[in-house]
Amino acid sequence: MKRINLISTGGTIACVPTDKGLAPGLSSKELLALLGGDYSNVHCIDLFSMDSSNIQPEEWITIAEAIKSSVGSCDGIVLTHGTDTMAYTASMLSFMLAGIPIPVVLTGAQYPAVYPDSDGRHNLENALIAAQSLSGGVYICFGNSLMLGCRAVKTRTTSLNAFESINYPYIGTVSDGRLLTLYNPVLPGGFSFSTDIDPRVALVKLIPGMSPKLLDYCIDCDIHGVVVEGFGLGGMHSIRRNHLEAIGRLMEKGIPVILTSQCLYEQSSPDIYEVSRPLRDLGVISAGDMTTEASITKLMWVLGRTSDMDVVRMLMQKNLVGELTERS
Amino acid sequence: MKRINLISTGGTIACVPTDKGLAPGLSSKELLALLGGDYSNVHCIDLFSMDSSNIQPEEWITIAEAIKSSVGSCDGIVLTHGTDTMAYTASMLSFMLAGIPIPVVLTGAQYPAVYPDSDGRHNLENALIAAQSLSGGVYICFGNSLMLGCRAVKTRTTSLNAFESINYPYIGTVSDGRLLTLYNPVLPGGFSFSTDIDPRVALVKLIPGMSPKLLDYCIDCDIHGVVVEGFGLGGMHSIRRNHLEAIGRLMEKGIPVILTSQCLYEQSSPDIYEVSRPLRDLGVISAGDMTTEASITKLMWVLGRTSDMDVVRMLMQKNLVGELTERS
Repeated sequence: MKRINLISTGGTIACVPTDKGLAPGLSSKELLALLGGDYSNVHCIDLFSMDSSNIQPEEWITIAEAIKSSVGSCDGIVLTHGTDTMAYTASMLSFMLAGIPIPVVLTGAQYPAVYPDSDGRHNLENALIAAQSLSGGVYICFGNSLMLGCRAVKTRTTSLNAFESINYPYIGTVSDGRLLTLYNPVLPGGFSFSTDIDPRVALVKLIPGMSPKLLDYCIDCDIHGVVVEGFGLGGMHSIRRNHLEAIGRLMEKGIPVILTSQCLYEQSSPDIYEVSRPLRDLGVISAGDMTTEASITKLMWVLGRTSDMDVVRMLMQKNLVGELTERS
Repeated sequence: MKRINLISTGGTIACVPTDKGLAPGLSSKELLALLGGDYSNVHCIDLFSMDSSNIQPEEWITIAEAIKSSVGSCDGIVLTHGTDTMAYTASMLSFMLAGIPIPVVLTGAQYPAVYPDSDGRHNLENALIAAQSLSGGVYICFGNSLMLGCRAVKTRTTSLNAFESINYPYIGTVSDGRLLTLYNPVLPGGFSFSTDIDPRVALVKLIPGMSPKLLDYCIDCDIHGVVVEGFGLGGMHSIRRNHLEAIGRLMEKGIPVILTSQCLYEQSSPDIYEVSRPLRDLGVISAGDMTTEASITKLMWVLGRTSDMDVVRMLMQKNLVGELTERS
């Protein structure tokens, strides 16, 4: 029986009712006890106990270090985590733990595990099964579906199938206590651990009529990189309120601008229309088919390594951990 | 045979290849001619010819006025429009043209109608069929699917089924030249035309580690209302980088804050968790199950009417044109 480390960080799965609303309260041991059965192969670690809407870059570093400490002493890791920012954490861990030789499976719940009809116990059981069967990498297991961590997005606020795998096949499904593998991702080998990140990254989702001043503010705010969610394939205003000029001002200051789409599915591609050709000339970096979560966390990770615009571009357009389908 | 006004505004459907990339070039007559067949009941109007990534509040007013001028002289309207901002335009028109007695059907294409395998001719044919069969309201007809305009979101950058109806049933499907009705929405009657809007609205999509300064900048930038895409049901940071305090500063300045979710599907609801209870105390207004596109355009429309916070709250939480499922 493989040795699994169960690391808890709080989230809905660990929530108990309080007079101020739901708040994380259960330890990893208490969570595991709710499953019944023999889990003598599982070693419990309580890292912290937070609502995941408060998980920030500082917590990502704490989590990554705890996982690194576990490598060598166990065969797989299950990380319980709130759903709200789980996709961001899974993406960031994919980069911080690139090439990790053991599986790291994030899970959580839409309803507290102490509730009789909660999805929490089921999700935790499935994640423990997945962590015994998978090869190395960072995954999310939720609602029977197993997906690559850097491709997952939370798309539903309340349903039990809260996460989707975006622009990438599902890795597997857990059913009747077994993992059915649907896709074997080819991930890079060679464990390369690093928590050096630059969290001074901003996200700007465009809306019609948006003032370009909101982009200029990134300069005033000492932001080191910007991800822009444009319209459709990556369009933006070029007349009256000129977003292109504002992006030009960012690039001139050495602030890389990553262009993605506000459409959930499929890739961005700012080359096709006359109106967006100037973006290419400005040196804007296309996010391709990366999720916004992966684009943001990858940019933080890349900027932790370099501020050289050419190296940033090269790394952002290279598939590092399965997050990007490279175009030939 | 019912009289239809076909109003063109550009977009991919009207695009032709140029040496700088695709750019809108076809008139509404040229578009209609591509269909073949007898369309003597269709009156063509060329409003403007733009890539929809440049459509802004000024164009919304021009479009709404053109549609209002058509009411009385035709039985239905088809509006061709680029896909990039079509969901925003459809949402805004739903408010500007509340209670319109004839159907307004927006359509467009993922590929130029002049291309042999384009979806443009098919979409235009379907929209013309829908405009002859529907009752009053604003709709999007795309890829065989007919949806309420204020519930539509562009979710795919390249596939032909580019739009989805979010948190609302599809109105119908067009097949074999006929509209099959799937759902009859109950929309308010009494045509109330108004293009008074306040476009000084900002959208802030949160990411882990975001500086609250980016919210404060809305004050410096003379923004009159903010829509925040929070995590999950509507969570945000309350420690270290305190978004709650920043939102409190906005509300104190009389700037309404509408809270929605960055999850595509299902409603926001900031009441459930301990960490988000203070949002309710601050007077943040929940967007319920409205799309971001509807939340943004509705807020612009409401602020064109009033700056009284209580009236803003009342209108934002009231279903005006089918955009919101009111909670009992």
